[in-house]
Amino acid sequence: MIKATENNEYVELTSPTILPKASGFLWNEKMMIHMNCRGYAVAQYMQPEPGKYSYAPNLEAKTFMQPEQPYYAHHPGRFVYVKDEVSGEIFSAPYEPVRVLPDKYTFSVGKHNIVWKIESNDILIEMSLSLPKEDPMELWRVKVTNLSSMKRKLSIYPYFTVGYMSWMNQSAEYNEALQAIVCSAITPYQKYQDYDKIKTLKDKTFLLADQEPSAWEVNQEAFEGEGGITNPSAIQNELLSNGEARYEMPVAALQYRIDVEPGEEKAYRFIFGPAKTEDEIAQIRRTYFIDTNASGDDGFMLAELEYAEYIREGRGCIEIKTPDADLDNFVNHWLPRQMYYHGQTNRLTTDPQTRNYLQDNMGMSYIKPQMARNAFLTALSQQNTSGAMPDGIILHEDAELKYINQVPHTDHCVWLPICLSTYLDETNDYTLLDEVVPYADRKEVGTVFEHINRAMHWLMKDRDERGLNFINQGDWCDPMNMVGYKGKGVSGWLTIATSYAFMIWADICEHSDQLKMSKEYRLAANETNEVVNKYLWDGEWYARGITDDNVVFGISEDKEGRIFINPQGWALLSGAADELKQRKLIQAVKDQLETPYGVEKLAPSFTAMREDVGRVTQKHPGTAENGAVYNHAAAFYIYGLYAVGEKDNAYRLLRKMIPGPDSEDIIRRGQLPVFIPNYYRGAYRQIPHTAGRSSHLFNTGTVPWVYRCLIDGLFGLQGNKEGIHIRPQLPSEWQEVTVKRMFRGVELQFHIKRDASVTTTEVYVHGNYIEDGIIKDLKSDVEYKVLVKIPF
Amino acid sequence: MIKATENNEYVELTSPTILPKASGFLWNEKMMIHMNCRGYAVAQYMQPEPGKYSYAPNLEAKTFMQPEQPYYAHHPGRFVYVKDEVSGEIFSAPYEPVRVLPDKYTFSVGKHNIVWKIESNDILIEMSLSLPKEDPMELWRVKVTNLSSMKRKLSIYPYFTVGYMSWMNQSAEYNEALQAIVCSAITPYQKYQDYDKIKTLKDKTFLLADQEPSAWEVNQEAFEGEGGITNPSAIQNELLSNGEARYEMPVAALQYRIDVEPGEEKAYRFIFGPAKTEDEIAQIRRTYFIDTNASGDDGFMLAELEYAEYIREGRGCIEIKTPDADLDNFVNHWLPRQMYYHGQTNRLTTDPQTRNYLQDNMGMSYIKPQMARNAFLTALSQQNTSGAMPDGIILHEDAELKYINQVPHTDHCVWLPICLSTYLDETNDYTLLDEVVPYADRKEVGTVFEHINRAMHWLMKDRDERGLNFINQGDWCDPMNMVGYKGKGVSGWLTIATSYAFMIWADICEHSDQLKMSKEYRLAANETNEVVNKYLWDGEWYARGITDDNVVFGISEDKEGRIFINPQGWALLSGAADELKQRKLIQAVKDQLETPYGVEKLAPSFTAMREDVGRVTQKHPGTAENGAVYNHAAAFYIYGLYAVGEKDNAYRLLRKMIPGPDSEDIIRRGQLPVFIPNYYRGAYRQIPHTAGRSSHLFNTGTVPWVYRCLIDGLFGLQGNKEGIHIRPQLPSEWQEVTVKRMFRGVELQFHIKRDASVTTTEVYVHGNYIEDGIIKDLKSDVEYKVLVKIPF
Repeated sequence: MIKATENNEYVELTSPTILPKASGFLWNEKMMIHMNCRGYAVAQYMQPEPGKYSYAPNLEAKTFMQPEQPYYAHHPGRFVYVKDEVSGEIFSAPYEPVRVLPDKYTFSVGKHNIVWKIESNDILIEMSLSLPKEDPMELWRVKVTNLSSMKRKLSIYPYFTVGYMSWMNQSAEYNEALQAIVCSAITPYQKYQDYDKIKTLKDKTFLLADQEPSAWEVNQEAFEGEGGITNPSAIQNELLSNGEARYEMPVAALQYRIDVEPGEEKAYRFIFGPAKTEDEIAQIRRTYFIDTNASGDDGFMLAELEYAEYIREGRGCIEIKTPDADLDNFVNHWLPRQMYYHGQTNRLTTDPQTRNYLQDNMGMSYIKPQMARNAFLTALSQQNTSGAMPDGIILHEDAELKYINQVPHTDHCVWLPICLSTYLDETNDYTLLDEVVPYADRKEVGTVFEHINRAMHWLMKDRDERGLNFINQGDWCDPMNMVGYKGKGVSGWLTIATSYAFMIWADICEHSDQLKMSKEYRLAANETNEVVNKYLWDGEWYARGITDDNVVFGISEDKEGRIFINPQGWALLSGAADELKQRKLIQAVKDQLETPYGVEKLAPSFTAMREDVGRVTQKHPGTAENGAVYNHAAAFYIYGLYAVGEKDNAYRLLRKMIPGPDSEDIIRRGQLPVFIPNYYRGAYRQIPHTAGRSSHLFNTGTVPWVYRCLIDGLFGLQGNKEGIHIRPQLPSEWQEVTVKRMFRGVELQFHIKRDASVTTTEVYVHGNYIEDGIIKDLKSDVEYKVLVKIPF
Repeated sequence: MIKATENNEYVELTSPTILPKASGFLWNEKMMIHMNCRGYAVAQYMQPEPGKYSYAPNLEAKTFMQPEQPYYAHHPGRFVYVKDEVSGEIFSAPYEPVRVLPDKYTFSVGKHNIVWKIESNDILIEMSLSLPKEDPMELWRVKVTNLSSMKRKLSIYPYFTVGYMSWMNQSAEYNEALQAIVCSAITPYQKYQDYDKIKTLKDKTFLLADQEPSAWEVNQEAFEGEGGITNPSAIQNELLSNGEARYEMPVAALQYRIDVEPGEEKAYRFIFGPAKTEDEIAQIRRTYFIDTNASGDDGFMLAELEYAEYIREGRGCIEIKTPDADLDNFVNHWLPRQMYYHGQTNRLTTDPQTRNYLQDNMGMSYIKPQMARNAFLTALSQQNTSGAMPDGIILHEDAELKYINQVPHTDHCVWLPICLSTYLDETNDYTLLDEVVPYADRKEVGTVFEHINRAMHWLMKDRDERGLNFINQGDWCDPMNMVGYKGKGVSGWLTIATSYAFMIWADICEHSDQLKMSKEYRLAANETNEVVNKYLWDGEWYARGITDDNVVFGISEDKEGRIFINPQGWALLSGAADELKQRKLIQAVKDQLETPYGVEKLAPSFTAMREDVGRVTQKHPGTAENGAVYNHAAAFYIYGLYAVGEKDNAYRLLRKMIPGPDSEDIIRRGQLPVFIPNYYRGAYRQIPHTAGRSSHLFNTGTVPWVYRCLIDGLFGLQGNKEGIHIRPQLPSEWQEVTVKRMFRGVELQFHIKRDASVTTTEVYVHGNYIEDGIIKDLKSDVEYKVLVKIPF
């Protein structure tokens, strides 16, 4: 039912008996589009704030992307109605809105395009969607093939929803000179001060066609008539009515009335997107459909090629071959693509949360380290002189901190050394630490090294008398907003994370020959770990925090929210947990948080408000922060498991994160294996029937941590100051793997296999034994063949 | 097709061949519901801000009610699916979502309920909706009758949409003890400070049934399956699956599987609405379905009766019988109901715009003058000591000025004497002027008389050196926001309106024996009129204003926005226009603004932004303020026409405001004659094919002005200090009318007829000639019979 095809460029869903709500997404520098296999679409582009060109039929709220968002009959979508002019029979490709199950059906989510093949009644409709590299617009191909042995008379109706553009002003018409449907609107606003913001917006939506249509309709109501969207009245007529829309809901529907001989194909191309003016649309038409290069390729074709090349640039730094083919496919093809998306687009926001921005660029260190470098400098240039980091990083001169970034969180500083360490591991570029960067006040400046020192000192100071870090209105967990808003409550996780950050920073200090400072931070980490064990160890696991009223929570006495994953995972990293505590907490996680779909963030999920904890306790049980399999937190935990050598536990949980190709999984999770969502529904022990469902949201800090689990953990191919340190932690059932590793401009071929003759890992480069397992002095003109023997 | 029935309690739409999108609305103290004849619904209730209990399928933007809002397949609605268990045939009442045109169909919009009768395949479905007087909930009756001569096996599925309640937390289940579907949600919020606001909200939606269902479904997706909302998969099964919804879209669907003998009826009752807790739902169940009074009536029946009585209390102060039966029906039944709605609910907002609040209570002066009195005191208690009125009036302790009320407008003071004068005309309650009221600062106090004097002085001072009133970011016209935001631009209309306000206030001063003051205001009015004629008369009509850059606009040189109705209408009222100017401007209005659907607000509609005028020029041509038949402005103009004796022009335009009962009108306007919408689409000369469409919005300041046109103008039965002054202005084609007038506790029966023997109006009370036409010394125990002779 689902398989990878064409050199793993695509993941295909073929001939299902029920159409799941599977989806894929494409993105470029200015936009993203989330495309559902049935034809529904969610698209946004930046100007600089997110905007729409294909709207819902009612006035949609401006909000972040919703998890598990329901589709409905008039949801925005891209469809092709097909009418047999002889029989009058109608179907629609891909599936919605007519919902005739086709004879054959393939949905191929590709890296640089999304393709459908729909066969119905001996008509083959092929649709594909690609994007240009930069322009926010959709490049569509529609091909019709007559598979029957007789001539067919057909009408093909490409149908692009436009929806309720604006209550102020909306209209649509067909522009003959442009061969385009042009829908116009004015973004609603009320205060004259906002006029300057809206007057530059791309308020038009256009559909450009490469071939003149037989007829068109631009008025949604006229198109549907009483037949409705599932059986539009307008297509009962010989020709669409060439109408117009004047403060009526626009739509972009074309008709091609064609004769097709047996075996004949007819191919069409369309461009759908936003524009400011008709001149701009005319320019797009010239560039994409009229002008050609010496080889006769027009801009449309070149843009498809350029986009494919752009996506290829985002490949990762390992290629693996393991006994787990599904893991190979995901890691070699889809995981770096998702990391690349985060690093390039910053989640299509102009003010990413600081922790997201830093972690997304931690991931970018594996793909385009120069971009990660610049991002760290950008983030630090917005640091307060006190050392505190702001809640969001402003990426555009007109941007401002919005929504959750107006709520004070206390964790942002810990991400600095942690994310930076991956960059340094990967590049060895310690010159970054010497870069001079201003502080937010633009009066003081300091080196990156000094900036991070201030961040660490801020963490040391933002603590109560016990030495536990204040949580204020949230740490990594946004809706844990009432634990410490009175100024007393502390975060167990953040205290542990601070200890880990001190350790990481101590290492970096040491490698920067700041030995005294290194010692101080190591001491601070140890002292923090002591405090953690004194106040937060509950007997079998670590507590999540202590409220303003001095109530410890996330402990065995709690009926709900008894155990949280984050303090456990990070205690493995920080060294707080000794071996006994490690064993205990791992067992507790297994017993209480592990499910067939991964590790839950907390359990049991809260079912009612706990006013001393906050909004997290009001979220739906099993969703988002309240007991979901929150993959970001799960990835921390897995990373912690690798840190203490728990290779089998780690691999088992890692595998649960990747949506499987089997049909049971796709129907429950509703997702092809092309990305890791921010969560799968949890509360497995409370509400089993919904557990495992995907949020369908692909914005998540999970992915760089999964990559770190692979590089630093599973395959053990982590960079350090001297070179690359080989310490694989293959699951016990694996006998051997090969890994191609791109590292500091060098390609290394690893063959890792079990060998009965060894008791510890032994590394051989071109047959030479490497004593400490660190391959040093890498030369770019050498092709490294590395044999790694590991014990049974 | 449309007719009034049952003593004009209903307006019925019967057996149409196409179902128009006609609608009616019901309201009570806490909610309103706008019900479309097809079954779609828009409902809101106050807690204290507007909330929902039946949501759209996606996250809807919080906004004011949208004009001409499009419906779509999954729009919130109230439906009954009906399945013939033998044939398997399905239809839905009223019409959506299955869209089978019934054999017979009646949609009756009533004053206190809305009723449908749908006959399809010898099954009669009767549905009715009423409301309690105060509680925000819907009272539904569904009756099924077997009209055929054989026993029928049916399943009846009452289906109430619930929609996307919340991204934080939503679920639904059937509660057996309550015999109710209970849907639960948590209102999304992000900042802990907002928790106190959301924690008291009625976040549950319930459907209470008076009879135990055979089965139920609470999960939208499970109900629809692949059949979709037009042909739900779940009703193909024998029984619904008794499911649950856990972070899935809720729905409230019940199934009654029944056998019905020939002629047999089965009747059901349901209550649908919001609640905070299950206890509250249990209490509602007890009150409405369980407990009965001595006569055996339960709360449901009593609530229907109480609501009907409540609506009856809102009747107007005239009952007319004229040659125009449609006008009679509208004026006797529907116009006061719409005024009453405004006065009782304040448009379901906690911060009505000041001008709306004052005008809505001007209307209330005819219905419940005591409420109008209190409203004037409330408004004045929020007046600034400078005399300036705030942009909105706060009606609830938690309320704040929102949206447009944060934009400074300069017209609010003019409405004080104008609206008050109607109250005084109607009640003669001059004691109101002596009431002592604080100012907004709560330090100073003053009588109402002093308050209004300050308002008048504020208007005198807020002027430029020419004596023209500043417009700032708007006057009566909200989006005229860029004429004067730099502090220089002036409003022509507001200057004229100020003159009129001075005149009205001078009259009131005179009647309050403040003769010196009266003289001063009259002088000020005359001086203002001189200034108006000097700077704003354009040769054939008055200009609309002068911009910050000293550009006069709304003049013959303008290509768009050449003429605005408001300066013309008010110049008739203020006395600025002498007879020649009156003739000229009336002709200009006729030539440029009059259309088959009424008088446009401006013409030609703007088609592009004019940056020195503002947002009004960006609105869609023919909508809202940009060239619509904006009935509020049209009503001012008609009132002005009566002021100068233009009785035939006035009547012609008045009639265009009331949606007609003929089918051409209902199809174009899409509205039954039960209310005057805020606009009909204009731009008649630019976009004729959409002209005349109703906005479907029933919040409008139009209605009290129409009532004033009838009382002060057409029938000429206006109160004054001495009694009631009889000055009818019947249109030339009318020969006679009768009017019952309730006035200051007295009932007067007027018979107004043309009489060849008179040359001016002559008034006879019980045969006695009244010299000055003023009936004085009214006695409540007398039944006045008044004959009014008017010349041919």
